[in-house]
Amino acid sequence: MSIRITQLSVRDIRFPTSLSLDGSDAMNSAPDYSASYVVLHTDAPGGLEGHGLTFTIGRGNEICVAAVQSLAPMVVGLTLEEIVADMGAFWHTITVGDSQLRWLGPEKGVIHLATAAIVNAIWDLWAKNEGKPVWKLLADMTPEQVVRCLDFSYVTDVLTPEEAIALLRRQVPGKAQREAQMLREGYPGYTTAPGWLGYSEDKMRQLAREAVEDGWTHIKQKIGANLEDDIRRATILREEIGWERTLMMDANQVWGVDESVANMRRLAAFEPLWIEEPTSPDDILGHASIRQRIAPIGVASGEHCHNRVMFKQMFQAGALDFCQLDAARLGGLNEVLIVLLMAAKFNVPVCPHGGGVGLCEYVQNIALFDYIAVSASLHNRVLEYVDHLHEHFLDPVVIRRGRYMPPQRAGYSIEMTAETLERYQYPGGQVWLDIART
Amino acid sequence: MSIRITQLSVRDIRFPTSLSLDGSDAMNSAPDYSASYVVLHTDAPGGLEGHGLTFTIGRGNEICVAAVQSLAPMVVGLTLEEIVADMGAFWHTITVGDSQLRWLGPEKGVIHLATAAIVNAIWDLWAKNEGKPVWKLLADMTPEQVVRCLDFSYVTDVLTPEEAIALLRRQVPGKAQREAQMLREGYPGYTTAPGWLGYSEDKMRQLAREAVEDGWTHIKQKIGANLEDDIRRATILREEIGWERTLMMDANQVWGVDESVANMRRLAAFEPLWIEEPTSPDDILGHASIRQRIAPIGVASGEHCHNRVMFKQMFQAGALDFCQLDAARLGGLNEVLIVLLMAAKFNVPVCPHGGGVGLCEYVQNIALFDYIAVSASLHNRVLEYVDHLHEHFLDPVVIRRGRYMPPQRAGYSIEMTAETLERYQYPGGQVWLDIART
Repeated sequence: MSIRITQLSVRDIRFPTSLSLDGSDAMNSAPDYSASYVVLHTDAPGGLEGHGLTFTIGRGNEICVAAVQSLAPMVVGLTLEEIVADMGAFWHTITVGDSQLRWLGPEKGVIHLATAAIVNAIWDLWAKNEGKPVWKLLADMTPEQVVRCLDFSYVTDVLTPEEAIALLRRQVPGKAQREAQMLREGYPGYTTAPGWLGYSEDKMRQLAREAVEDGWTHIKQKIGANLEDDIRRATILREEIGWERTLMMDANQVWGVDESVANMRRLAAFEPLWIEEPTSPDDILGHASIRQRIAPIGVASGEHCHNRVMFKQMFQAGALDFCQLDAARLGGLNEVLIVLLMAAKFNVPVCPHGGGVGLCEYVQNIALFDYIAVSASLHNRVLEYVDHLHEHFLDPVVIRRGRYMPPQRAGYSIEMTAETLERYQYPGGQVWLDIART
Repeated sequence: MSIRITQLSVRDIRFPTSLSLDGSDAMNSAPDYSASYVVLHTDAPGGLEGHGLTFTIGRGNEICVAAVQSLAPMVVGLTLEEIVADMGAFWHTITVGDSQLRWLGPEKGVIHLATAAIVNAIWDLWAKNEGKPVWKLLADMTPEQVVRCLDFSYVTDVLTPEEAIALLRRQVPGKAQREAQMLREGYPGYTTAPGWLGYSEDKMRQLAREAVEDGWTHIKQKIGANLEDDIRRATILREEIGWERTLMMDANQVWGVDESVANMRRLAAFEPLWIEEPTSPDDILGHASIRQRIAPIGVASGEHCHNRVMFKQMFQAGALDFCQLDAARLGGLNEVLIVLLMAAKFNVPVCPHGGGVGLCEYVQNIALFDYIAVSASLHNRVLEYVDHLHEHFLDPVVIRRGRYMPPQRAGYSIEMTAETLERYQYPGGQVWLDIART
């Protein structure tokens, strides 16, 4: 029985996180974590819906909402059946099919963020219709079925459909075993909770102590505003977490290339596993240069890497030790999958970008599929966890002793509660009316 | 006396060019050339205004308009004096200062296109206040004054302020002479008029013949939809323009890397000077690979190259024979200037992207300044000309025997007539009401 998408609605949802400096870093001093939140309505009996969101940090969310509205005619009226029959072709059409909208990117910035919200909502719809969480929907596919979801345009010089199938076939043995292992043990995570730049040193020390008590083995520090502060705060973190746990650092793009090298040479004494986003996310050759010059500190980037063509070059140039793809900066799960496969080919571990609002919910599905069916390795792989805003989801992430336990509910784990969607709507929801009044 | 920006207004202006297939190519089959059109209103007596636009091709222009509105608070209330006192710092602030808006790019896509419209409107305002066209405003600056307009973040590994000053100082001798030469002879151009993909072969032949009669020495063909068609159409063009004139080809991003090489080996018989946008505009390493494998055919790209970091790498990787920067894809004239300087350092000729609506009006100012003060060379430099929509401007480009004659009127040559702004407003202008009615 075919299910038709009858309507797309989109909401501007914002959380006033800037009031507490949650999520503060050297580039983003006071974000209001926000979502352009899409619902695909269908004619299925029982009111089956697909939910998806793209993450922004406040002002400008209204622009993404406008972009979703402009893209809506490309999905309304389609059936789920015809979309998933050749989802690679569908993805190509939504990114390239309206050349007037494509011009605004192409495949980057606002229009690509908006595309991600819609594409991910389709995955949510598909998974709900199959009665599985997205990671399981993917894990149950044959290599050929996965590859049919992909658009290989602009990447065939490093990955052909045939190679992609071969990469996936390689890991078919052991899939069931790894799935059982994940259900039992969960996927290893790390926390940024103590590390936000806007937190006082006392608060940071306290949160680091709690993180250790909670079983976290990997902790990330935000740096980049002031080097002497960074050193002092790293000292506190090492005091609290010891040297047997792992410290990572994240500069959120504030440095130039040579500056990154100079600063990381100073911070090398704290033995960080990686420096994340040392410079412009577009600077592929810059990341490669930094990586060569600061080894053995690894270079991590990807949350602002806007499409598969950029990741392709990151891999070709040897620019990354860790690939931190984002579930909604890339044009939705289809593009994420092709990046997972390229990463596997180049032997770069994928540690997706979490945090924000909903990103942890999304990326647990990605990391689980990556382990079960693509990389089959946990070496150097940790999934970001930030302990904000999970209470707004119907199926929030479950963390046990620093590990993500696989979600069980059908869908992409991204559906917010009805109450949240009402209260946090911007600017008319009660939360924002209350703030405006004070 | 200080001039304060009291208000920013923005209009959605669209021209129904898809009706005649003007501007049709392999990627963009039916564009409606459009502009997100900004006016900065001031408190200056006499109603001094700054005008600027960003170019889009139709649907989605409303998203850029929304982005301009979101950015408006960053300029309204400022004085022209404080902006131009340190315009590099101003540019840094408008691109990075609101981190919530920056997140939507960063420095790419819709938010950067919107930034360009505003930044260029400030240049228009500045030049009008000085009573000079923008090229002349720039040409009259000292090297230090030019460099004060630039933001070097993310590019100091290839260009420092000191180097930029040295590059400009090198060309101070001869500036007056080159300016006089330009006023006398104009800047060499090329035409895409005969080459649009949607035109019949008869129309193409006729337009090529007319282009030769009009004195054009360089003509560009749109290719990429079908190789056999491309060959047949190239044959017609060579019949009409002969071999003493220059033919260029433009694939508008439709190929992969290896496909580009294979196709250009077939088209090499027509001796094109360059292949433009063979593949994804983000594929720096792909362009470098194509360039190596198809020499002596040159590789040209840039109209979709979204910021200085991408151009920096294009130059570092040896990816381009011709740099085709865009006046509004980059974040306005400030970023254009830093790309001009990097191109000069790497000895890559700059042939800016013209066409669309208003782009020729913009880029004549850029090419003139480049010749007078930066490159001091016309070798391998031609400025794109497309003969559409100039009648909508107060100060349209003037072409004489295939050369751009320098504009004389104060400003950035980008102000549209009041009648056009009224009639072509979308969707309420008379032109669109008439189309809706038929």
